[in-house]
Amino acid sequence: MVDAGRATGAASPGAGEIFQILRDGRARTKAELAALTGLARSTVSSRVDALVASGLVHPAGEAVSTGGRPPARVAFNPLAGLVLAVDLGATHATVALADLSGRILSSRTRSLRIADGPERVLDSVIAEGTQLLEAGAHDGSHLVGVGIGVPGPVEHSTGRPTNPPIMPGWDRFDVPAYVQRTFDLPVLVDNDVNILALGERAVSWPHVDDLIFVKVATGIGAGIISGGELQRGAQGSAGDMGHVQVPYSHDSPRPPGDERDLEAIASGTAIAADLRSQGIEATDSSDVVQLVRAGNPAAISATRQAGREVGEVLATVVNMLNPSIIVIGGSVARAGEHLLAGVREVVYRRSIPLATQHLGIVQSQAGETSGVLGAAIMVVQHVLSPAGVEARATRS
Amino acid sequence: MVDAGRATGAASPGAGEIFQILRDGRARTKAELAALTGLARSTVSSRVDALVASGLVHPAGEAVSTGGRPPARVAFNPLAGLVLAVDLGATHATVALADLSGRILSSRTRSLRIADGPERVLDSVIAEGTQLLEAGAHDGSHLVGVGIGVPGPVEHSTGRPTNPPIMPGWDRFDVPAYVQRTFDLPVLVDNDVNILALGERAVSWPHVDDLIFVKVATGIGAGIISGGELQRGAQGSAGDMGHVQVPYSHDSPRPPGDERDLEAIASGTAIAADLRSQGIEATDSSDVVQLVRAGNPAAISATRQAGREVGEVLATVVNMLNPSIIVIGGSVARAGEHLLAGVREVVYRRSIPLATQHLGIVQSQAGETSGVLGAAIMVVQHVLSPAGVEARATRS
Repeated sequence: MVDAGRATGAASPGAGEIFQILRDGRARTKAELAALTGLARSTVSSRVDALVASGLVHPAGEAVSTGGRPPARVAFNPLAGLVLAVDLGATHATVALADLSGRILSSRTRSLRIADGPERVLDSVIAEGTQLLEAGAHDGSHLVGVGIGVPGPVEHSTGRPTNPPIMPGWDRFDVPAYVQRTFDLPVLVDNDVNILALGERAVSWPHVDDLIFVKVATGIGAGIISGGELQRGAQGSAGDMGHVQVPYSHDSPRPPGDERDLEAIASGTAIAADLRSQGIEATDSSDVVQLVRAGNPAAISATRQAGREVGEVLATVVNMLNPSIIVIGGSVARAGEHLLAGVREVVYRRSIPLATQHLGIVQSQAGETSGVLGAAIMVVQHVLSPAGVEARATRS
Repeated sequence: MVDAGRATGAASPGAGEIFQILRDGRARTKAELAALTGLARSTVSSRVDALVASGLVHPAGEAVSTGGRPPARVAFNPLAGLVLAVDLGATHATVALADLSGRILSSRTRSLRIADGPERVLDSVIAEGTQLLEAGAHDGSHLVGVGIGVPGPVEHSTGRPTNPPIMPGWDRFDVPAYVQRTFDLPVLVDNDVNILALGERAVSWPHVDDLIFVKVATGIGAGIISGGELQRGAQGSAGDMGHVQVPYSHDSPRPPGDERDLEAIASGTAIAADLRSQGIEATDSSDVVQLVRAGNPAAISATRQAGREVGEVLATVVNMLNPSIIVIGGSVARAGEHLLAGVREVVYRRSIPLATQHLGIVQSQAGETSGVLGAAIMVVQHVLSPAGVEARATRS
């Protein structure tokens, strides 16, 4: 799916432009909309009618009359459409329905192995989505788009995963086309970390324009919001922090000058391997988190060191992008303050003062549903962009 | 100066919106503009009149008549305003006049020490600008804005340099207020590398949305264009690549684990110091460039190694931002392919394949005037933004 959200249709403003005014939720009369836009009354009238026909806008009572028949008011109707929002992890899937304000109406999480391949995983997701649609009484609302987060790099413009390391069978798979055989709608796909960044911002930092979200879990990745926009880069691989190569720190016993991917030394998997080498039983992130919570000194030390390694890369990112907030999330972050303490120690020491004096490094506050929330917001931004609204109002 | 360019005035489109259509240079009738915008004929008429009164738009002949008086056409008038564009370096100043299409009409470069402090430097710049304005026959055009690039970090929203290391006396100096005592107009200030990035893109890569410009000279800095926008970050310090800390490479004789700013090991100054330690006479970038051009093996080797060090940091940036073009400029880049060869060697080896398969690493093509060109473009984008045009058309 090409993201029509970037085409603003500024040269030919129409229903989309009127809708952006109504999106704040306030009810307005046609006369008020004509005054706000400078559009001719007849133009406003036909465009509002098209929006009402599309369902995006609905009658919202009457304004106080100044004599004669009181003028009708219209307002944004968030239940005009539903979004199917999907968050796929390595071993789980959350499927949710959201309204057009991004509010989650219902959701389900179940175990599901991404490695089972796209057909099996997507068939299951589609079945779950269909059940959610049937189970809910949504006042006749219909689905307007599908948003899917996957645990690997995605070419966002086509919705195809690109060499995703933990998703065998998904490379270049046309996810939108497959889903569109059931739901003939816009299907947007992005990697899970970008989607978590959108969700985190929407929930906790709605007024922050420069935010980096870092997920430290089985893998490591970042979602970069800069200048108010999610930055995907030229091929959609922006934020691939896990494959940044880092030198071994000089206080480690490893050979100096040797280098490895950040993921190979600071992910939950890497911390668990480090603990095993010390004779402590640990296979994955959740074991690490349990050990840290139980006060195991080796686990605390290894988690803090992982934070320092992540901080080494973030120090460069802070100098280069000057964010105001870095949010650390993912399963390893649930170990508490130890990961963050390591990150802060290095970032505040190594980045320039101008970039760190107002910088917050905080733990993710978003709960289990932040993935589907972000996926919903990605679709809402697309569907309710001026161009997206234009298309819907023209179609109806 | 707050950058009004980000406020689009979408909720209240007016003259600004009509102007954006005309900005492509084509002449159009009021009827054509009404059809393109959906605005009422009377609205279009009053807004076009305001634009003509502001001078931004001028009569451009008549369309073919379909009976009756042939309708008048209007078009963008790039000479409706002039921009004073200033590029300040450590030891030089270039002052230029540009029209509203960003074309440089005249320019002068002279020696000038930035360390002489803001009053002396800006007085000199203002005097040069006044002379250029008097010398040129600009058809009565008047100045509409001033753009200034300086060799240090700037808080773009206020135009104040922030702890600029090579600009004694400039810290927190209110550059716009000082210049506005002579020219009571929008004065935009940014660091020279951001401005070079804007100039480089305008000249050589107008359709590229993700471009990193790296200046390797006395200092090292980057201008980051991502998602089509120059990224300044929360405090305007984005792109401060020179202060990224890098470990010594393991094939160097320096102590492993020790770290320094990139600038301290890869700038023109650092290369010259390295050569001096080998008994070769070199004080700055231009000596290095001369030695390289003369085929001096030590200078070639040191320049290539500097390229590798820059490449180490860029490898992280490529993974994180996935640009399509990296442009290497600055005085050391004039040494030819050796610097670039070092950069390419490391970036292509260390970044992920998805991010490098379509990545170009090229030498700056912009000439001596790219600094003032970028400064002019920064001001044009501001003055001709919908909100900027709105303000001008309302004022006149």
